[in-house]
Amino acid sequence: MINKVGREIPDELLIDGKEVYQGAYSRHKREYKKAAPVVRGFVDPKASKMVDSIKDALIKCEIRDGMTLSFHHHFREGDYVLNMVMDEVHKMGIKDITLCASSMGKAHDPIVPMVEDGTVTGIQSSGVRGKIGEIISKGKLPTPAVMRSHGGRVRAIQEGDIHIDIAFIGAPTCDEYGNCRGTGGKSDSGVLSYAVVDSQYADKVVAITDCLVPFPNLHASISQVNVDYVVVVDEIGDPSKIARGAAKPTKDMRNLMMADYCTKFVSSSPYFKDGFVYQTGIGGPSIASTISLGKIMRERGIKMSVGIGGIAGPMVKLHEEGLIEKLVDTQAFDLKAIESMRENPNHFEISTSEYANPMNKGAFVNRLDFVILAALEVDINYNVNVVVGSDGMITGAQGGHPDTAAGAKCTIIITPLVRGRIPTICTDVTTITTPGETVDVVITDYGIAINPLRQDLIEAMKDVKLPFCTIEELRDKAYAIVGEPEKVQFGERIVGIIEARDGTILDVVREMKEFVFRD
Amino acid sequence: MINKVGREIPDELLIDGKEVYQGAYSRHKREYKKAAPVVRGFVDPKASKMVDSIKDALIKCEIRDGMTLSFHHHFREGDYVLNMVMDEVHKMGIKDITLCASSMGKAHDPIVPMVEDGTVTGIQSSGVRGKIGEIISKGKLPTPAVMRSHGGRVRAIQEGDIHIDIAFIGAPTCDEYGNCRGTGGKSDSGVLSYAVVDSQYADKVVAITDCLVPFPNLHASISQVNVDYVVVVDEIGDPSKIARGAAKPTKDMRNLMMADYCTKFVSSSPYFKDGFVYQTGIGGPSIASTISLGKIMRERGIKMSVGIGGIAGPMVKLHEEGLIEKLVDTQAFDLKAIESMRENPNHFEISTSEYANPMNKGAFVNRLDFVILAALEVDINYNVNVVVGSDGMITGAQGGHPDTAAGAKCTIIITPLVRGRIPTICTDVTTITTPGETVDVVITDYGIAINPLRQDLIEAMKDVKLPFCTIEELRDKAYAIVGEPEKVQFGERIVGIIEARDGTILDVVREMKEFVFRD
Repeated sequence: MINKVGREIPDELLIDGKEVYQGAYSRHKREYKKAAPVVRGFVDPKASKMVDSIKDALIKCEIRDGMTLSFHHHFREGDYVLNMVMDEVHKMGIKDITLCASSMGKAHDPIVPMVEDGTVTGIQSSGVRGKIGEIISKGKLPTPAVMRSHGGRVRAIQEGDIHIDIAFIGAPTCDEYGNCRGTGGKSDSGVLSYAVVDSQYADKVVAITDCLVPFPNLHASISQVNVDYVVVVDEIGDPSKIARGAAKPTKDMRNLMMADYCTKFVSSSPYFKDGFVYQTGIGGPSIASTISLGKIMRERGIKMSVGIGGIAGPMVKLHEEGLIEKLVDTQAFDLKAIESMRENPNHFEISTSEYANPMNKGAFVNRLDFVILAALEVDINYNVNVVVGSDGMITGAQGGHPDTAAGAKCTIIITPLVRGRIPTICTDVTTITTPGETVDVVITDYGIAINPLRQDLIEAMKDVKLPFCTIEELRDKAYAIVGEPEKVQFGERIVGIIEARDGTILDVVREMKEFVFRD
Repeated sequence: MINKVGREIPDELLIDGKEVYQGAYSRHKREYKKAAPVVRGFVDPKASKMVDSIKDALIKCEIRDGMTLSFHHHFREGDYVLNMVMDEVHKMGIKDITLCASSMGKAHDPIVPMVEDGTVTGIQSSGVRGKIGEIISKGKLPTPAVMRSHGGRVRAIQEGDIHIDIAFIGAPTCDEYGNCRGTGGKSDSGVLSYAVVDSQYADKVVAITDCLVPFPNLHASISQVNVDYVVVVDEIGDPSKIARGAAKPTKDMRNLMMADYCTKFVSSSPYFKDGFVYQTGIGGPSIASTISLGKIMRERGIKMSVGIGGIAGPMVKLHEEGLIEKLVDTQAFDLKAIESMRENPNHFEISTSEYANPMNKGAFVNRLDFVILAALEVDINYNVNVVVGSDGMITGAQGGHPDTAAGAKCTIIITPLVRGRIPTICTDVTTITTPGETVDVVITDYGIAINPLRQDLIEAMKDVKLPFCTIEELRDKAYAIVGEPEKVQFGERIVGIIEARDGTILDVVREMKEFVFRD
């Protein structure tokens, strides 16, 4: 069946009520009964939750073949937790595990042999970088990897599309009764937002910490009432890879130019007024645009009421200067953000459901005036790809991209027109991961295109001096520079499913074949 | 069937898997699937949750005959919310409503005519004071009122024993997207702990506020992701009745003597050591004992790690002095506690599930070393009654009494031996609301009895100079003073069910007949 963004979705995937994508907001109206875990009350008020090792926790949780285990990615490339747990699972000879992680990266390359020997047979994640992406793309995982946005993952757990048997919470600090926080300790991640839904919907929950603190560890990100066992290990992550240093302002002229375009666009739009709500990523152009936006805000005396994120240093600086009233945070991107989470009383942790779930009663992304996003590819229908490289390899993650795009009043993609010999703006993206319907503006170093669906924005910009053009003109310019790329040749086998945030199928990723590039 | 505390529970009540009480911890081992609400995702990111009136909210929630509506009692005797909502329900001609409130009191006397005309046909509450207690006791409610402890109520909602169709949150402050807080505004209640579970498990949730604040109202006690509609009204409560002035130290010699006994007992027990965890009520003797406990703590250099509550001024003072490290709070009892919730960073709000739910993975009550409680009656099996007066009238509430008694290492009841002409210590309490198995010590103005189940405490106290005696001796002394009371004569009809915290039936309350008293 052809879906709303023109992709052919094979019938074999449309089972158990699975539907094809029908538009960004079409399925939100339905009612559903929330999923629920099977829990066991705490038998004896005096009993302890402490167990000696991850292996003991696995035994107490009655680990067995076929289970779904969940993890979160606040430690990013410094994460030890997923590998430590899976190492024990592997040693115990358990097979057929589905990994349900909020995201996976190069830190998890050690999982590759476990895919090859049948320990891991399913992967559900925001995306996959590194060698795992490679083996999925090469068809080594027996089932298609399911890739969801951050909001889509929460929705899937809450609707029961995924049932988590055991959730593992890597906790920078934890007390003996299971209250976990993202702040403090030696592997400080600032927040634990991605793990909140896991703790609420998993049958069993294991907190793994390298910093046991006195009871009660409050305000808890993960509450004791949802935690079965607590394990203390030497290290849950590599602090140098969890928290990078402060993001440095870019000196790349191309990035600075795009940032200036973006700031001029934002500040000329009707949504730029006192109390606006804003989110941006951590790419070079995004950070540059945050910095240049700050200047305009100072000049015009306009303040942001809420900065949503993924928070990095430049947003924290605006907050500390008084230009942003409150920061709400699902992931601290750098040391400055982690420090701010500890120190600034108006920097708040929110759960990923509060951040982006499309099927709760209202997430923070719905309140966005602007979101500034990056892209691997954008096509002439404004569809964006942030997961699959132009060579067909799974190499990125949806993250909050589709969620913020769907929620924001003005969704802006900043991307260079070409990267090396790859055109970013193209006729048809390799894989659709954010539907064009939810993308409003594309800013490149060669010009700016506004989605024709947004006649209001086109009208609002008619006297603004920016290099506006059509998306087709941008595509033509890109092709003129680097040539039109040959369509990637995929095999038949489906190795990945790109799920829209509402649970429908937006696109599929097929097995990689030889990579062919014109001229 | 006769239950574990010797009460005859009629077979007619033992349907749908309902069981009789089998002991304080006997049913905790079972697994259960948590209940879940039916929710509707938020259709349009730009849609508003604001509605013009309570009536409009009721219509949008599709109010109909037979629904269960929930309320919380943080505004205590100053609550306007329950009456305002029920007034609209009544005007709309809706019938057969079950009220599921965390507690009900004299503020809700206006509900009486709605019971009489069939608007309200079921009441589930911690207890009922005032005229509603009277009409229940007189058999005017068509179904037995179900009375549960605070923890038992959360358990019942979480296990699906009660399904809430619409929850109403009286919010001292709320933003237009439904984030509710207990602090701020003109009807400041400090916390909203009782309402958290309602917001999570009800199909529809309506926030009612008299102080709309800018988005986002964080840290939210009730999250936007669980709120469907927001209504602004003139007043949600009478501030003078929500927050009483600071509790005054008692000058009653009897109370002071019992407080001294209690302090001596506590400080002579093995649990009185640095880092102990403590809870007390707000009766005269309890407050006096908190004050005198403070003296001993100063003298011996012993600090409390956590004060749990129901928090009142005397606990806040010890916290501010540095004698209590953290306060965790489900209900602010006075102005001082409300102010502390706003001002003191180590005064934390917790949900009632975190406080007392016996069937989550570990509540705060399980961490108690001591709890100091009151009683209407205590019998020679240490069973306590806090709900039904010695005349047979429902006049009190379980509150957290059975929860803290079951959780604490040392549960102390302080009560005068007689009140007026009523003996507090008796052969057999009118109604069992906290099982004797969970009660360790009874302190009266005439002597102190330790439950023979606690040989360890009896041993620990053998050299302590306090007027120890048996509970039978206390009973005999009481009867010698005021005479042995005639057993209350009840009718046949069951008007109330006292549910144990695990959902079994602990006792029943029957219809009142003529009150007879010997001599």
